[in-house]
Amino acid sequence: MSDAPFLFDRLCVIGIGLIGSSILRAARSYGLSRTLVAADLSQKVIGRVEELGIADVATTDFGAAVTDADCVILCVPSGAFGVVTEIIAPHLKPGAVISDSGSVKGAVVAQMSPFLPSGVHFIPAHPVAGTEHSGPDAGFAELFENRWCIFTPAENIDAEALARYRAFWERLGSKVERMTPEHHDLVLAVTSHVPHLIAYNIVGTADDLETVTQSEVIKFSAGGFRDFTRIAASDPTMWRDVFLNNKKAVLEVLGRFSEDLAYLQRAIRWGEGDKLFDLFTRTRAVRRSIIDQGQETAAPDFGRPHGKH
Amino acid sequence: MSDAPFLFDRLCVIGIGLIGSSILRAARSYGLSRTLVAADLSQKVIGRVEELGIADVATTDFGAAVTDADCVILCVPSGAFGVVTEIIAPHLKPGAVISDSGSVKGAVVAQMSPFLPSGVHFIPAHPVAGTEHSGPDAGFAELFENRWCIFTPAENIDAEALARYRAFWERLGSKVERMTPEHHDLVLAVTSHVPHLIAYNIVGTADDLETVTQSEVIKFSAGGFRDFTRIAASDPTMWRDVFLNNKKAVLEVLGRFSEDLAYLQRAIRWGEGDKLFDLFTRTRAVRRSIIDQGQETAAPDFGRPHGKH
Repeated sequence: MSDAPFLFDRLCVIGIGLIGSSILRAARSYGLSRTLVAADLSQKVIGRVEELGIADVATTDFGAAVTDADCVILCVPSGAFGVVTEIIAPHLKPGAVISDSGSVKGAVVAQMSPFLPSGVHFIPAHPVAGTEHSGPDAGFAELFENRWCIFTPAENIDAEALARYRAFWERLGSKVERMTPEHHDLVLAVTSHVPHLIAYNIVGTADDLETVTQSEVIKFSAGGFRDFTRIAASDPTMWRDVFLNNKKAVLEVLGRFSEDLAYLQRAIRWGEGDKLFDLFTRTRAVRRSIIDQGQETAAPDFGRPHGKH
Repeated sequence: MSDAPFLFDRLCVIGIGLIGSSILRAARSYGLSRTLVAADLSQKVIGRVEELGIADVATTDFGAAVTDADCVILCVPSGAFGVVTEIIAPHLKPGAVISDSGSVKGAVVAQMSPFLPSGVHFIPAHPVAGTEHSGPDAGFAELFENRWCIFTPAENIDAEALARYRAFWERLGSKVERMTPEHHDLVLAVTSHVPHLIAYNIVGTADDLETVTQSEVIKFSAGGFRDFTRIAASDPTMWRDVFLNNKKAVLEVLGRFSEDLAYLQRAIRWGEGDKLFDLFTRTRAVRRSIIDQGQETAAPDFGRPHGKH
């Protein structure tokens, strides 16, 4: 429990999966809110929230959940932002901060904005953090530490509300950056969405080969393939929605990826080793920068255990 | 030091990088050979081997190194197998086991076989293990534990030599599987070579975008991109040679990958969420199998540290 004052008297998180439950756990650990409210459509999830004891109030009634809340964060699947906003809108407290954790900001803004009453402060946000696991049990308080959270509010956002919500994420351990929803969606297409699509795709291709058995693919996966399977194990519903909602930027980056791959394919076919070597040297430097900036561990193999265990 | 008898009185490893130095360290730790000989073209590497104390003899003279050795393992870059074999051939002891650690077996067999005298036992081998680091300092004795080592000897290989070399790898901690060089190269194209090419490629594509800065790519890499950068930081020379030497299988798998990616691209363009969802669900199961079979850790995010540190 921190000695700093509460940032929000009543914080409501809607959608208690990996992200939602991590926000609740961290808000409790770091003493960011007097009262924590968890809301989810699923009675099963709410039951689990109660067992885990990660909220003061847990309910399937979204209207009741947001009533009197000073901050409401929607951590629901991309496809659900519009309908959930429509349900909660009449119950929102004037002056409250309304946010979300969606991976695609343009679509979230388009879905939520039409329903939001004036007098609330809408600060779309995307914590660039996650693991391949999902559900309320997968969350942990440290998920956001040393990660970035991208805010994409409108230009005329209330400065005090923005500062307060920024302080909230900083106390969760994150660094905050502000950009437009459009730029966010392009940046994430490169750093997250297309990498996921490619990972899903290579795992699918391997699974389909008739000349190599699935058992061989699995046995010999330590040669590189298994690194792709981690992100190809991410939540299918969430990722389907990401691609459908960030179509333009994903198709743009994917087009470039395919062009570049065709160039490498041709270099292999014609034995042009220099072209391969030049690229492989350049990519090493990108890795070094990521480690230098604390976004990755330098331990070999991601620090995977090598000893007998 | 194990109490089991030495498997080889004198073991010679040529090429002391990640793999070569790990074999030496493990052979020493597990007491697999009375005398360990390290050979490398680079005087600097030999100096480092002496400082690390991981061999009994360290030399740049390949002929002297293999003299009287009961087992010789070439851990040199793919392009060097032919010339090194030509150099050592006149000095090889009759009855010795000759092996290698190359990632492409068809090419290694084609390069080495013409120079090998009759009377030595040629057992091409590929330990499917590694990290993104290279050089003699990067090695460690546990690298091969619980990993597979694939043998691709000719059908008429001497049974006793084969059994002895299998025992060697098993005592290094590995599981051994035998297949033809051709099948090996196809299996590895799927599980290792094409994944590496794709990783190199997406890192290159991201680095080239004019609309997203390199600093943004690095900052927000935790969204998935950084998983690719680990394998895109692998040794450029080694990987150039892998692609040039396994052209046929890599182009075959790459062709399928691109076809499958075009299918997903079209599904995104036309909003066909079901096609995406079906694939994303199927790939999750592959991940589970890899974890179940001990080729991966189930810790979220590869067990990367999340706390403040």
